[in-house]
Amino acid sequence: MGEPLGSDEAQVLDANEAFYDAFADGDLDALDALWAERASVACIHPGWDALYGREEVMASWRAILSGERAPEVVCLDPTVHLYGDTAVVICGEAIDEHFLIATNVFVREDGEWRLCHHQAGPVSGQRPEGRLRRRGQRKAGMLN
Amino acid sequence: MGEPLGSDEAQVLDANEAFYDAFADGDLDALDALWAERASVACIHPGWDALYGREEVMASWRAILSGERAPEVVCLDPTVHLYGDTAVVICGEAIDEHFLIATNVFVREDGEWRLCHHQAGPVSGQRPEGRLRRRGQRKAGMLN
Repeated sequence: MGEPLGSDEAQVLDANEAFYDAFADGDLDALDALWAERASVACIHPGWDALYGREEVMASWRAILSGERAPEVVCLDPTVHLYGDTAVVICGEAIDEHFLIATNVFVREDGEWRLCHHQAGPVSGQRPEGRLRRRGQRKAGMLN
Repeated sequence: MGEPLGSDEAQVLDANEAFYDAFADGDLDALDALWAERASVACIHPGWDALYGREEVMASWRAILSGERAPEVVCLDPTVHLYGDTAVVICGEAIDEHFLIATNVFVREDGEWRLCHHQAGPVSGQRPEGRLRRRGQRKAGMLN
């Protein structure tokens, strides 16, 4: 994530982008560094029951990313909702051929925004028109 | 919700229970009073895209609760995750014959915990065994 610069919103968006970069790259070390160390941690993968605690959550990411290939994932149209030292990012997720909607909750720990909760669930129908492509063109081909 | 008493966790659980009571009772006024007035508000109903802003969110609840009958809803096994003046409740939802998992984000506004974000999504398979029934027996029949 580099040094935190700019507004809280920009820093949270950077942390959210780093999460999807780590997910897309299958980079478990980067993903691990993004989750909170002291704050309560939880995660709800699509269709799964809730997972509680850092150990269980990271084990789930290891399982997801240990497949033959990591899923293709693109974060779409993130919005930041700031509540002091906590922030919620809501964004679309294009994962392989699926379109999901996600809530990512961040807390400020030692000056860095870190994930404390993630929930993603399916959206009925097709990817809404007009979704912005905030993660550049690297994997944009899958969206067309 | 009455006067806030007890620990933050207990107050947040009370607010979460009040949310599901209002939902189960189809009580739009109670629901309206539970959502934050100043904090940024968003909501993701199961299968829907995200809704932003108090007006759009409350319109969605009016639509959901204006049907021939309000859905039967029971909150299951809520856990509270406190981050200062923000809190996340993760809980199961038994809605009619569906089992969902939800994230409810609360902020403290004027000393009251109020909802600023809700996401609910489907869980694959059956209701997990051992789920606690925290909302009493009034609608417990639907769970058997």
